Amino acid sequence: MEKTSIKHILSQGKISEDYEINAWVKSFRNNMFLAMNDGSCLNNLQCVLPTEKYNEEFIKTINIGCALNIQGTLKESQGKGQRVEVDIKTIKILGKADSEEVRKTILSPKKHSLEKLREQAHLRVRTNTFGAVMRLRSKLSFAVHQYFQTESFQYVTTPIITNSDAEGAGETFRVTNFDLKAIPKTDKNEVNFKQDFFGKPANLTVSGQLEAETYALGLGKVYTFGPTFRAENSNTTRHLSEFWMIEPEVAFCNLEGNMDLAEDFIKYVIDYVLEHCKEDLEFLEQRLIKEESTLPKQQRSEMSLIEKLEFVTSNNFKRVSYTEAIEILKRCKPNKKKKFNFIIEEWGADLQSEHERFLVEKHFKCPVILYDYPANIKAFYMRLNEDNKTVRAMDVLFPGIGEIVGGSQREERLEVLVDKMKTLKRDEKELWWYIDTRRFGTCEHSGFGLGFERLVQFVTGMSNIRDVIPYPRTPKNLDF
Amino acid sequence: MEKTSIKHILSQGKISEDYEINAWVKSFRNNMFLAMNDGSCLNNLQCVLPTEKYNEEFIKTINIGCALNIQGTLKESQGKGQRVEVDIKTIKILGKADSEEVRKTILSPKKHSLEKLREQAHLRVRTNTFGAVMRLRSKLSFAVHQYFQTESFQYVTTPIITNSDAEGAGETFRVTNFDLKAIPKTDKNEVNFKQDFFGKPANLTVSGQLEAETYALGLGKVYTFGPTFRAENSNTTRHLSEFWMIEPEVAFCNLEGNMDLAEDFIKYVIDYVLEHCKEDLEFLEQRLIKEESTLPKQQRSEMSLIEKLEFVTSNNFKRVSYTEAIEILKRCKPNKKKKFNFIIEEWGADLQSEHERFLVEKHFKCPVILYDYPANIKAFYMRLNEDNKTVRAMDVLFPGIGEIVGGSQREERLEVLVDKMKTLKRDEKELWWYIDTRRFGTCEHSGFGLGFERLVQFVTGMSNIRDVIPYPRTPKNLDF
Repeated sequence: MEKTSIKHILSQGKISEDYEINAWVKSFRNNMFLAMNDGSCLNNLQCVLPTEKYNEEFIKTINIGCALNIQGTLKESQGKGQRVEVDIKTIKILGKADSEEVRKTILSPKKHSLEKLREQAHLRVRTNTFGAVMRLRSKLSFAVHQYFQTESFQYVTTPIITNSDAEGAGETFRVTNFDLKAIPKTDKNEVNFKQDFFGKPANLTVSGQLEAETYALGLGKVYTFGPTFRAENSNTTRHLSEFWMIEPEVAFCNLEGNMDLAEDFIKYVIDYVLEHCKEDLEFLEQRLIKEESTLPKQQRSEMSLIEKLEFVTSNNFKRVSYTEAIEILKRCKPNKKKKFNFIIEEWGADLQSEHERFLVEKHFKCPVILYDYPANIKAFYMRLNEDNKTVRAMDVLFPGIGEIVGGSQREERLEVLVDKMKTLKRDEKELWWYIDTRRFGTCEHSGFGLGFERLVQFVTGMSNIRDVIPYPRTPKNLDF
Repeated sequence: MEKTSIKHILSQGKISEDYEINAWVKSFRNNMFLAMNDGSCLNNLQCVLPTEKYNEEFIKTINIGCALNIQGTLKESQGKGQRVEVDIKTIKILGKADSEEVRKTILSPKKHSLEKLREQAHLRVRTNTFGAVMRLRSKLSFAVHQYFQTESFQYVTTPIITNSDAEGAGETFRVTNFDLKAIPKTDKNEVNFKQDFFGKPANLTVSGQLEAETYALGLGKVYTFGPTFRAENSNTTRHLSEFWMIEPEVAFCNLEGNMDLAEDFIKYVIDYVLEHCKEDLEFLEQRLIKEESTLPKQQRSEMSLIEKLEFVTSNNFKRVSYTEAIEILKRCKPNKKKKFNFIIEEWGADLQSEHERFLVEKHFKCPVILYDYPANIKAFYMRLNEDNKTVRAMDVLFPGIGEIVGGSQREERLEVLVDKMKTLKRDEKELWWYIDTRRFGTCEHSGFGLGFERLVQFVTGMSNIRDVIPYPRTPKNLDF
């Protein structure tokens, strides 16, 4: 008999037909009712054991966590909670799970904290919550590729090990093949990088943008989707040392086109999971309601998870210039009453997360695209506006998570770019190839970066970013 | 007017309609015929300049490499070589390209060696060859996701920074946040990793398999597709220090199922590009014929590129046990005549690339799956056969490139796994979480790793692996 997935049986199984499944025991009631799950979907398949046919010894070996092979006949269920169930004809224990040992793990049938689940990240995907989160993460990834491929973008893998720091923030991890106990030195007592694997200092990428730009200027429309790294010592619920980023880059595209792309893209991928992951989303929606039920009413979300997603896909993102945003912030209550940690006093201030959240959650009550930021708080590659003081930057801000997208129109003018690099003390020699692209058929072009885990957070309603990636990396945390 | 891609105009453009394009000049004949390309496809769009309407000064600024905006009317072409062309109504220079400077680059219209192109990797995607290779690479990537998602696999991103070495080969890059000039030491003069970013030694992953296994044992069927790293000092046409790997992992699946999956998967993705990338493949086929025309006849490929791809998708891969392969090799001519560098004398020998190529290219003349290798030449996690001397390993060998897939059924039995780790001196404490999965509902499961760049090499016919990834990383090479 061919094995069938539980997802298939629950959605398309035929009554009176025989099926064979391989799956794990999620619960075992009354020595009779087995709830089986194989990871293909959230819901379990109830399998009914004819207890009289098996001796006590055998039944005792069936525990939560066991892997079983079951053959049986599908029938309509008498009990509540499921439409169909399987009458077991044969049952085989493939892999045991000692009940005493299970009790010590998060597989045991009681409520475990998310912190506890993180400590057993190798098992947490077997829980309902993490099964749902990771299936959603997978579907969202696919939606990303599907969107860009349908829109004729070429997927580009930019290098992970580089010797440049795209953002210039200096928060890169060093990559080396040296024995750290005995670093080779030069005559001048400097590190002798010539002897290292790559013959020069190497680090992990913070962004594939600069390389993606070189490809957009040949292929027209490209996107990356790969891991990026920040050696930043921040222990927050929004930061990871290793995270996945999506970076489209488009030739012959200005900032307006870039905003259109970001909005269209985000709406597409959210629509995609609304269509393909209803069951998992409904489960996570209930989870969030339970989680928030312990909070005071005013701290709970106004919308349910699915309402929030549908709100995003069916409303325009509000586009606001930085200058307008500063005016709003200067005049707003929390600023006047000094409730903000950072009081906005004048144009030029860098916006903090508290200001972004105020704009999105209190003032506009919808996703917001801020654009045209002061040049001196943004990166060297952003296009200078005619006012000579703002750049064509944009950030997309989302309720609950703040900045989800950061992008810009790129400075395509050779002289302006080189001037800017001089001002910001960026090494022109290191980035000769980047500058070179402005010599040969330069053109206006734009792109953005979207932190994939922030998107997964938004879609799943998980409040800690460590709970939307299989094995999170954060300061002092490299488990698994 | 809305801008249209050249791909769209060439495939679906309507005669007498007006179009607007943004693209780069590939050639400019007789001050009149512009071959324009925007990266959307291989072929150029011919645009005809009414020379009489423009002064010499202006025409002189139009060079190869320039970015232009052109509006004009589509008409049937009088000339040879193209079906349609555009009568230019307006033309705007968006980005210049100085002809003297172009002459110094690979954009200049003459034959450049692949080595030369590598030195200007930021520009090479603008050539026909690299445009075709990178479009194929993009489509192949998408086919990978499409295959697994259609087959209900969940995409899993396994960590890039780890503190384990899955293969145990010790060829990992170190990741650190230390200032290499001043490494903190302990009292015992050891490196004080507690003070490093993660609080312990960290390295770049060589494989996501072990983490993928933990996910397969919850979600059932998973796959990874991400970068992996080898700090191996090999300067060959088949090795990169940073490459992308695809690693499916399937619960309740034995080695036969694993072989079926590998074969089905490879055939699917090749079929996909045969269907979607005909034009680029035909171009690369011609390129290969030209490249091989300088070789003596017996060194040229017997099949053309597309014939070779179709051969793979329409024939069964030959499945041969390691033991059978050794018998064939012991008896074969090059072994008897000592033409091999490594003479096969007895069972247990590790196969070299020369042996694999003999089996694939001379003996079987088709893709080969070798399986059931001696345990002592394979990794600790492979399932021991009943003979106690072979393991359920498999390698898929391809003509021209050798090993493209390496996989195995995994050792699911707790005691056998732990014994094996002891024998091979693998640290049980480090891999506690991996071993743990064998305690809770273990089951037979299998998976494999496919080096993505080797697949791209096979599909594009490019002989050097550095030419199928945008910015290759190899020993002493970290440019761009």
